[in-house]
Amino acid sequence: MNDLNHPAPHPIDMIRAKRDGKVLTDNEIQAFVDAVVQVPPRITDAQIASFLMAVFQRGLNPEELAALTRAMRFSGETFQRTRPTPFRVDKHSTGGVGDKTSLLIAPIVAAAGLADPMISGRSLGHTGGTLDKLESIPSFSTQFSVADFTRIVDQCGFAMAGQTPTLVPADRILYGLRDHTGTIESPALITASIMSKKLAEDLDGLVLDVKTGSGAFMKTDEDSRHLARLMVQTGEASGTRTVAILSTMDQPLGRFAGNWLEVWECVDILKAGTGPRPPFSADLIDLSLTLAGWMLFLGGKADSPEAGYELADHLLVSRAAYQSWLAMVRAQHGDTNVFDQPADFHQPVAMHTLRAPHSGYFAAIDCTAAGWAVQRLGAGRLIPGGPVSAHAGIEMHAKLGDHLTADQPLITLYSEDEALLSEPFHMLREAIHLTHTPPTLAPLIGDVITHTEIK
Amino acid sequence: MNDLNHPAPHPIDMIRAKRDGKVLTDNEIQAFVDAVVQVPPRITDAQIASFLMAVFQRGLNPEELAALTRAMRFSGETFQRTRPTPFRVDKHSTGGVGDKTSLLIAPIVAAAGLADPMISGRSLGHTGGTLDKLESIPSFSTQFSVADFTRIVDQCGFAMAGQTPTLVPADRILYGLRDHTGTIESPALITASIMSKKLAEDLDGLVLDVKTGSGAFMKTDEDSRHLARLMVQTGEASGTRTVAILSTMDQPLGRFAGNWLEVWECVDILKAGTGPRPPFSADLIDLSLTLAGWMLFLGGKADSPEAGYELADHLLVSRAAYQSWLAMVRAQHGDTNVFDQPADFHQPVAMHTLRAPHSGYFAAIDCTAAGWAVQRLGAGRLIPGGPVSAHAGIEMHAKLGDHLTADQPLITLYSEDEALLSEPFHMLREAIHLTHTPPTLAPLIGDVITHTEIK
Repeated sequence: MNDLNHPAPHPIDMIRAKRDGKVLTDNEIQAFVDAVVQVPPRITDAQIASFLMAVFQRGLNPEELAALTRAMRFSGETFQRTRPTPFRVDKHSTGGVGDKTSLLIAPIVAAAGLADPMISGRSLGHTGGTLDKLESIPSFSTQFSVADFTRIVDQCGFAMAGQTPTLVPADRILYGLRDHTGTIESPALITASIMSKKLAEDLDGLVLDVKTGSGAFMKTDEDSRHLARLMVQTGEASGTRTVAILSTMDQPLGRFAGNWLEVWECVDILKAGTGPRPPFSADLIDLSLTLAGWMLFLGGKADSPEAGYELADHLLVSRAAYQSWLAMVRAQHGDTNVFDQPADFHQPVAMHTLRAPHSGYFAAIDCTAAGWAVQRLGAGRLIPGGPVSAHAGIEMHAKLGDHLTADQPLITLYSEDEALLSEPFHMLREAIHLTHTPPTLAPLIGDVITHTEIK
Repeated sequence: MNDLNHPAPHPIDMIRAKRDGKVLTDNEIQAFVDAVVQVPPRITDAQIASFLMAVFQRGLNPEELAALTRAMRFSGETFQRTRPTPFRVDKHSTGGVGDKTSLLIAPIVAAAGLADPMISGRSLGHTGGTLDKLESIPSFSTQFSVADFTRIVDQCGFAMAGQTPTLVPADRILYGLRDHTGTIESPALITASIMSKKLAEDLDGLVLDVKTGSGAFMKTDEDSRHLARLMVQTGEASGTRTVAILSTMDQPLGRFAGNWLEVWECVDILKAGTGPRPPFSADLIDLSLTLAGWMLFLGGKADSPEAGYELADHLLVSRAAYQSWLAMVRAQHGDTNVFDQPADFHQPVAMHTLRAPHSGYFAAIDCTAAGWAVQRLGAGRLIPGGPVSAHAGIEMHAKLGDHLTADQPLITLYSEDEALLSEPFHMLREAIHLTHTPPTLAPLIGDVITHTEIK
């Protein structure tokens, strides 16, 4: 990148420039990321942290953000297309409770003939992680080399695996420092982190599910819109068609939250065919079909997002998506026998049901508190790298707006350790709110942010 | 400081609070400094750097700044008064070129019966360091334990030595990180660094010389006033009577800049008695008497700063200050024989004189460039801990506002290595500016900032 006529800018100069609110050039940002990933690094952790705090305070303009994202994306191994492939599309969610749309969307778009190279993460804070959910399937593997991952995508239309150490190393280093230096909650840094990893999948199209509400990382509509715009701009700047859907995360999505519990819910939906769909999953299905519909539209499989929604629904009903799902699970060494009777595979040691304390409408739930309750039941980690329980979690017996009679079951808690039930039970009891008049609820699916809309 | 009922706040919480512009409590700031100096530290370099950048961006209010300064001041060994002592007073300058007022002021206030426990520093950037100047005196020692330093102050009325590793360790750690993380130029952090070290001298009074101009770190009057106010507030908040004098640093102060050269200039002044004072030192003498006058006023030796100025002048003329100087140099193992003929002790290997390129008024000099020229002649360091030359430096043959004829000597450069003359010569030639009409010059001594004035 640099030669004698254009020596690499020194990290201290970039720190001082951003500190004083100046705009950094592509070359400067590239030099910063180069310095971070070089072995040994040409920049200290203290310098990186100082730079990150300066970015936190001063922000990045769209060109700087695109440059940072690009430098991070190409900081390690990248996917290379060696032959013509189908339209490559993926979905990313900013995270929620019971958010298992990936498990439905990826098989649907693969069944339509698109390719979805889905790199996923683990549970973080109050939210679950797709890899943790998939690993509740016996012998399922989530660690593959880039070459093997590519082979599974070619074969099944999608793959669902974890980050490898060689992909986007700059993000791993920067995120590790942000985590303990108070620089997580920066829209610019969040965007660069998410988009560098997603764009490293070498995508033609990307649909973002940006959540707002009591269970989302972004609590206000304004913050969510800002983040959505940054991500859409950054994706489009790299040549990837990018769309963001604003959605509401004010209660656990669907029927279950937990690892195997969420796989079970999706298998029930994938297997339902023309029969009745399982209870309490309507919001999950609606959001999944909306997101998949946009992906099918971007990939040229439908003439509109609405037509994409219909096609996605058809691929569910025809069980084509279920066939894609089974192929992927087998390719990733998973035991598909557990899908025969998924309810039977669910074997929590202890359970306890929270009931309506009085009659009334189910008006609100502190969904972040509910997420933490799920994690403390055993579904999440106490320490990075620690084990998670496959069968811990919660089952919703009602959705917001439902009318409850006194003592009617509201939420059942499951755990593999009886001692872990008490605290989450009290957290959930505090988190729910019943009213005598019907609540006004935000629509599940809100505005769509496209590049055109931003201009 | 902390007990079970008041556990230490976690560093990450303090970073996040300051990042978001919140006000930190005394307890939180104390916990931050405790975490920094603990062995092993309870905070990473990256966390410290992130906090420093957050402070850089958000600032500190007067109470936070007083708390940070106090926590740093008491982070290591401190001076303890075990018996009644005279009023303890010191002077600190924000740094300039040829700024040798310490060498005159400390002997003057000691001769008046005050105590000046002067902890000094080494050359930094384009400015010289008092310790480097003093060490040009053969066998002079600047390293003493706190106990020995105190003994010299008791005996001579003042001592001039370096920081010990046990004094104010928090500043050493924080300054070391600020230096390479782009967090030097923060008024709050500059104030905490300066004032923690000065207040660790356990002072009753402190006079600050805050410089503005082409040779100062602060280039604008506004920046200097802001820094002066912060330092005065912080000193007063700790119970030390504190005054700041704004002064102009737009040319080298006095006749010489360099290590032995500056000692020579001061010895000439201290020895002058009732005879004529040496040429080109009038600005140095005026500023030194002003600062000393304020110190004598604060210490109760004069009824006003103006009366203090007169007393300081008298202590110079009576050579009482020179006797104090000789006593201190002997107590610090220096060879006072070199003061007999200080010009003879000056033995540069090479010299070269810059002459006026044409006739005109000496209107301006880029004084920071002049400072760098002095350092590159050998008076400063290329690397921390490196050697400095005793005899390198410059001699001014004119002051700003003087009228010069073509070819009249303007600046003589001295070095102990002929090869080091060329670059500084060109730097100085570029730095000077002659005009046909007399320049308008800023007064040497400007406003006085006191605690009353701030309220």
